[in-house]
Amino acid sequence: MLAKLIIMKYDANQLKITEVQKSKIEEINFDNLVFGEIFTDHMFTCDYEDGTWKNPEIKPYGSIELDPSTKVFHYGQAVFEGMKAYKDDKDQIWLFRPQQNFERINKSGARLAMPEFPKEYFFKGLEELLKLDKEWIKKGFGNSLYIRPFVIATEECVSASPSTKYKFMIICSPAQAYYSGEVRVQFSEKYSRAANGGVGAAKAAGNYAAQFYPTNLAQEAGFQQIIWTDANTHEFLEEAGTMNIFFRIGDKLVTAPTSDRILDGVTRKSVIDLAKDMNIEVEIRRVKVAEIVDAARSGELKEIFGSGTATVINPIVGFGYKNEKFELPKLEDSYGKAFKDTLMKIQYNQAEDKYGWRYQVK
Amino acid sequence: MLAKLIIMKYDANQLKITEVQKSKIEEINFDNLVFGEIFTDHMFTCDYEDGTWKNPEIKPYGSIELDPSTKVFHYGQAVFEGMKAYKDDKDQIWLFRPQQNFERINKSGARLAMPEFPKEYFFKGLEELLKLDKEWIKKGFGNSLYIRPFVIATEECVSASPSTKYKFMIICSPAQAYYSGEVRVQFSEKYSRAANGGVGAAKAAGNYAAQFYPTNLAQEAGFQQIIWTDANTHEFLEEAGTMNIFFRIGDKLVTAPTSDRILDGVTRKSVIDLAKDMNIEVEIRRVKVAEIVDAARSGELKEIFGSGTATVINPIVGFGYKNEKFELPKLEDSYGKAFKDTLMKIQYNQAEDKYGWRYQVK
Ligand SMILES: Cc1ncc(COP(=O)(O)O)c(C=O)c1O
Ligand SMILES: Cc1ncc(COP(=O)(O)O)c(C=O)c1O
Repeated sequence: MLAKLIIMKYDANQLKITEVQKSKIEEINFDNLVFGEIFTDHMFTCDYEDGTWKNPEIKPYGSIELDPSTKVFHYGQAVFEGMKAYKDDKDQIWLFRPQQNFERINKSGARLAMPEFPKEYFFKGLEELLKLDKEWIKKGFGNSLYIRPFVIATEECVSASPSTKYKFMIICSPAQAYYSGEVRVQFSEKYSRAANGGVGAAKAAGNYAAQFYPTNLAQEAGFQQIIWTDANTHEFLEEAGTMNIFFRIGDKLVTAPTSDRILDGVTRKSVIDLAKDMNIEVEIRRVKVAEIVDAARSGELKEIFGSGTATVINPIVGFGYKNEKFELPKLEDSYGKAFKDTLMKIQYNQAEDKYGWRYQVK
Repeated sequence: MLAKLIIMKYDANQLKITEVQKSKIEEINFDNLVFGEIFTDHMFTCDYEDGTWKNPEIKPYGSIELDPSTKVFHYGQAVFEGMKAYKDDKDQIWLFRPQQNFERINKSGARLAMPEFPKEYFFKGLEELLKLDKEWIKKGFGNSLYIRPFVIATEECVSASPSTKYKFMIICSPAQAYYSGEVRVQFSEKYSRAANGGVGAAKAAGNYAAQFYPTNLAQEAGFQQIIWTDANTHEFLEEAGTMNIFFRIGDKLVTAPTSDRILDGVTRKSVIDLAKDMNIEVEIRRVKVAEIVDAARSGELKEIFGSGTATVINPIVGFGYKNEKFELPKLEDSYGKAFKDTLMKIQYNQAEDKYGWRYQVK
């Protein structure tokens, strides 16, 4: 897959850039994208060895060769991030709060005993990559380029101890405005996502595989996703697999506090800030399953929605708990919809950005 | 690294075998092996695609090429096993309860939504591999070949859902009788290894990375390992990072019951069986931290040891809890030592095997 190289240069930050000879963009049908399957022409890579990050490089997207003893295969020492680039009508490219993702990948890494990645490499690598692959970011509200920074442990040794070698990479996948269908969730009664004192607050690779089997069971029961409850009592609602969760009871929003079990979502914290502006009260506190079930019965539960980079705000139309199913009302004045519109307008440079959340790539 | 091929044949089970042209065994210093760094000449691989396991193959040990979007890198969908092959004085090769490892890798896989691996492929692949690399199994009490079967998710897609493709592999690493030095453990007060309803009972890759950071902290405090406590209260002792744990109070052994948080160790269950034979009482029940601390103070705590394939039985000479350090007495009649001798004699075909635990490779 590695195309012939036409440019090879070193810039001030010692970033080596090798461009593809010919872009594969012509082969892509941008009107029919499946999430996460197609990647742009280039990728960013950087290696950690002998106690330091070295060889930051942008090169043609392609396979990596790894020994079967490579630690990531055996001990799951890997973390990732998810962010998006947006293009406005003037072909300007924007990121949304990328500093948050940068900080979080290092926070995740620290919990997994991985070395901190330097800020300059992260931003330089990311921005040069986006500029090189800018044709892959399509205009149009909802279109974006999904960006996946990740780090894997690359030491070739099967002893169960932190790796001495790592590879940091950024790959990018074009994404369409995406309608996930009607989402119904199951409140977890038995399985758990994270332990107190565990790694739930990190975007650690292993957290995701751990959810697949229970999610399969939920899907067989007619739900698309799970809302995880605390592992200890299963009485408190925490978050979904890749989204934080908000409940609207009457005119008030309720969401669980972040903790060492819950990912501190960038969309979640943005929603909380926007709510203040919109005079919507948000209570950040433990959310009892029983409270939500009662509110659903009494009709006070107006909305549930998830927040996350992939879908921004994902409305949830119903939930299941202990063999009972609840449907939520269809709302005229959905908070979720209002947050989504506001957030997307900021992301696509169509609205004022009073918080300074937008970050231009130029 | 792929050597030229000299033999290529299909046997009855459609196992394709490609031998190396020249073994690299001459280059290895078997008197100075670091655990898990050197691998034998061959490896076993098998791929899952289109709903079925296909192409079981033994070939020269070497790198694999993977797309950066491969799911194992992002979502930690990977499980493994650890087992050993032993050589007796007549050059016969033995495994110890391999059926247990086979069953456990599928149990781990099921929890991570991975497809079951067929028994015939597992045993045929493993045995042919061991026969091909038999020179790597060195005679001598304590020498062995560490065997690492593992499965990784290989679908090339970053959406957070179970992979549709997998690779099963077996790699083998020669291991020496191994003295781990004096092991002191810390009882965990804050961090946790596993949640109720989580994946602690599976040999899931992500469980191991999650332990690295707390273990680093324990090491800085002068301990080699952690004994994990329950995530909920931290009042009950569960297991160590790669060992189950036994406590001897007076003449009685106590060990935690297996659960969805604790790995069902093969060595653990063998020790429990042997104890019965040796008229040692074993209580399988929750073990309170407070009970062990009290027993240490009163002098009733005689021994702590870990059980696991890597070291068989690992004596623990002291422990720390809440800024207090406790040292254990040096014993003449150590249970741990007795179990280790008995187990190893069975493993090396030097003692009667009344349980039928030995499995000959021929
Ligand atoms: C477990 C989990 N919770 C929540 C989120 C939402 O976080 P963010 O809004 O930063 O995308 C994600 C996804 O990124 C996640 O993986
Ligand atoms: C978490 C954990 N506990 C216990 C063990 C011991 O199990 P076994 O005796 O089967 O090697 C292992 C290692 O294999 C392990 O990884």
